[in-house]
Amino acid sequence: MPYISLPEGLPGIRGAMAFRPETARPLNALVEVLLRGPHTLSPGERELIATYVSYLNDCYYCQTIHGAIAAASLNDDEELVKRVKADFQHADISEKLKALLIIASKVQKGGKHVTSEDVEAARQQGATDLEIHDTVLIAAAFCMYNRYVDGLGTVQPRDEEMYRERGKRVARDGYVTVSNEYLAEFAAR
Amino acid sequence: MPYISLPEGLPGIRGAMAFRPETARPLNALVEVLLRGPHTLSPGERELIATYVSYLNDCYYCQTIHGAIAAASLNDDEELVKRVKADFQHADISEKLKALLIIASKVQKGGKHVTSEDVEAARQQGATDLEIHDTVLIAAAFCMYNRYVDGLGTVQPRDEEMYRERGKRVARDGYVTVSNEYLAEFAAR
Repeated sequence: MPYISLPEGLPGIRGAMAFRPETARPLNALVEVLLRGPHTLSPGERELIATYVSYLNDCYYCQTIHGAIAAASLNDDEELVKRVKADFQHADISEKLKALLIIASKVQKGGKHVTSEDVEAARQQGATDLEIHDTVLIAAAFCMYNRYVDGLGTVQPRDEEMYRERGKRVARDGYVTVSNEYLAEFAAR
Repeated sequence: MPYISLPEGLPGIRGAMAFRPETARPLNALVEVLLRGPHTLSPGERELIATYVSYLNDCYYCQTIHGAIAAASLNDDEELVKRVKADFQHADISEKLKALLIIASKVQKGGKHVTSEDVEAARQQGATDLEIHDTVLIAAAFCMYNRYVDGLGTVQPRDEEMYRERGKRVARDGYVTVSNEYLAEFAAR
């Protein structure tokens, strides 16, 4: 049971967003730029960062939906997503992404945990300033989304197929388009 | 020294926003709705929540600038802002705001720390669903902004007068207007 009266039938962040479309708009705009916008990191790589941080924050809804979007963006490789969560150092991802995941894990603990050595290590693997910036902001943003979803006690169904299906749609159409399908209805109220 | 090449002369989040105007826009739009938009909680009360969470996250820039905006929104009462940070239970604020600050402090630790008892206690003091929702999201959002500012190693001058001056301007003109003064220049690059 959510702690406040959220619209029914919309799991996780979707219920919270429908409750408050005024804040849903910038929340969706932010994640769209960060995870799906033009970039030298692929959408799949950025979704892996989001998934990993959500896993560290133990947010079931976020790690499952972003894991599904990541898989849908990476040739449906669900095993890779699981491997990144469990042990990314031995996952089949680039050394650059591993170094960025270390930075993301530090941000998850708190901004001051990031060190110049962490950043230098990522640079040694070819990470650019933009990639480092966006890794920090993706990790920070998911410390927000995860707290938003769990802090309101949202409904988070254990239904893998639901997440898989939605993951494919978000990977294809993006966050803003897919969320507008239900947000328009609530914004009009 | 920031970990990446941020534009000089722009402290804290401003340098990071100038580096990446595409993400600055939704970040500013979000904080504008949450802290300055029409609401049953005054801008000063919402800035106190933002300041308190930034204090818990030990982010010097955010707690100082939002503390200054809070004071500017509360008849320049800088002592009240200090009191809220040090011991809000004995500060001259409403019992409702105290109950909301408890929820915010739980969100700062992690979304799962919020309990139905915390929410019920706020409701007993008259808090509405919208006020509870926005408290959770303000606290979650500042867990993002704080990590963004500290995780990039931004410059955070110890210059109280600079924060006081800027606090008055943001309290008067809002986040989007004040940040557009410098973001427009960088977005054009």
